[in-house]
Amino acid sequence: MIFQDKLNNIVRKNNSLLSVGLDPQMEKMPKCFMGKKNIFFEFNKAIIEATHDLVCIYKPNSAFYEAYGAEGVKQLKLTCDFIKKTYPNIPILLDTKRGDIGNTNEAYAKYIFSYLGVDATTLQPYLGYEANIPYLELKDKGFFILCRTSNKGAGEFQDLIIDGKPIFEIVAENVAKKWNGNGNCMIVVGATYPGELKAVRRIVGDMTLLVPGVGAQGGDLEKTLKVGLNSKKEGVIINSSRGILYASNGTDFAKKAREEAQKLRDQINIFR
Amino acid sequence: MIFQDKLNNIVRKNNSLLSVGLDPQMEKMPKCFMGKKNIFFEFNKAIIEATHDLVCIYKPNSAFYEAYGAEGVKQLKLTCDFIKKTYPNIPILLDTKRGDIGNTNEAYAKYIFSYLGVDATTLQPYLGYEANIPYLELKDKGFFILCRTSNKGAGEFQDLIIDGKPIFEIVAENVAKKWNGNGNCMIVVGATYPGELKAVRRIVGDMTLLVPGVGAQGGDLEKTLKVGLNSKKEGVIINSSRGILYASNGTDFAKKAREEAQKLRDQINIFR
Repeated sequence: MIFQDKLNNIVRKNNSLLSVGLDPQMEKMPKCFMGKKNIFFEFNKAIIEATHDLVCIYKPNSAFYEAYGAEGVKQLKLTCDFIKKTYPNIPILLDTKRGDIGNTNEAYAKYIFSYLGVDATTLQPYLGYEANIPYLELKDKGFFILCRTSNKGAGEFQDLIIDGKPIFEIVAENVAKKWNGNGNCMIVVGATYPGELKAVRRIVGDMTLLVPGVGAQGGDLEKTLKVGLNSKKEGVIINSSRGILYASNGTDFAKKAREEAQKLRDQINIFR
Repeated sequence: MIFQDKLNNIVRKNNSLLSVGLDPQMEKMPKCFMGKKNIFFEFNKAIIEATHDLVCIYKPNSAFYEAYGAEGVKQLKLTCDFIKKTYPNIPILLDTKRGDIGNTNEAYAKYIFSYLGVDATTLQPYLGYEANIPYLELKDKGFFILCRTSNKGAGEFQDLIIDGKPIFEIVAENVAKKWNGNGNCMIVVGATYPGELKAVRRIVGDMTLLVPGVGAQGGDLEKTLKVGLNSKKEGVIINSSRGILYASNGTDFAKKAREEAQKLRDQINIFR
């Protein structure tokens, strides 16, 4: 099944546009995990079991696993394998923000799609379409290209103006017109920039947008949805990581994570 | 010791501006490694032992290890540990081309500098200076920011013109003026674009440039050095990966790799 169909199915089944970011950090693990084996995997498993009927996607960020080297990557693999086996209808978006020349991107694609076997990833635009062909020719997979990122200093290059248009809009245009020949491209725009999100939505039609930056980063949910939803009142994935994962660090962490996920899922639906 | 000093010392000791890219690919391994344990590490170790007096840096690209997941990352760690222990005066540049928001970049920095303990890495410019602070505040480490990449389609965004200047020149200007407060920034420019390399050299003064794209990608060595060298006839690192690693796939692979490395080191010095 192609990624977009898998995503649409679970969006409708779980009535959800919520992505839970599986970004485990050792110093934030609930105390009950201290001294245990496979901490990140066991933590993720508990979060997934508590939230699987509330999400449309899980988004582990590779960085938080790589921080622990080979052992961390093993925890990521255990997590992906668990989701694929237990909840095969929930897609996995591995946040990698990779971007290299073609020959090297082939190796990254092996990590992401052969070794971990996930459904989608995030990509850098800077090297252009040609460098990204090894990803984009994988028709069934999904690719979220960074357009307007959620960080404070995102504008340094992304807002530079070319013939009256900021670069992030040119990225959105090129992705929509040139990169998307296989219909497997999506866009990343931070919730911290609703004006830019609105501009991107106008450029890319009904394309799916990944929107990080709600929660810890301070993005406004109502504004985000007002300008971000597509013509079907879908097409937006709202990611939250820290606000859900670390709602509590006691033994009730999974219960509290579910409560936060449910609250956010329902708040999103109010504004749809 | 700060990265730039470590680099300068070995450039002079080995009379070399050559970087060997340690990018092992399973399908290209010499036949004598078939069925052996720790193939990538043993291959790298043989290459390093055969070339250590000819190089100024080793540049493993993380992608080629990640392709094999936790086991691949273990091979990379063994390789880095071997270099640090056996040839502690040769710096290691881990090619990662990472770029995320600050919180996530902290996790990548852990992978690169705590877990693997290398000296330098490559970074994406797209998220801007602010997102990269977790790297740049590591004063002793080196950071090579992508400016003009070596791939055929590099110009899609990098050549867009803002007030008469292409974006890659604005990246070079910002890195030189704004990112380099700790004097630990360097620039990546492909050998496949000597005109752009010349423009970048004019902008960044004597800053060190990493120049991939000689060899398999077809960059011209003489032109590259003519426009790339700084006022001290240094300041350029010429990387070659495939041309050296895979000079032979017989039992003489290390000997042939040494011959290729020596040839390229000496050719570079002719044009200095």
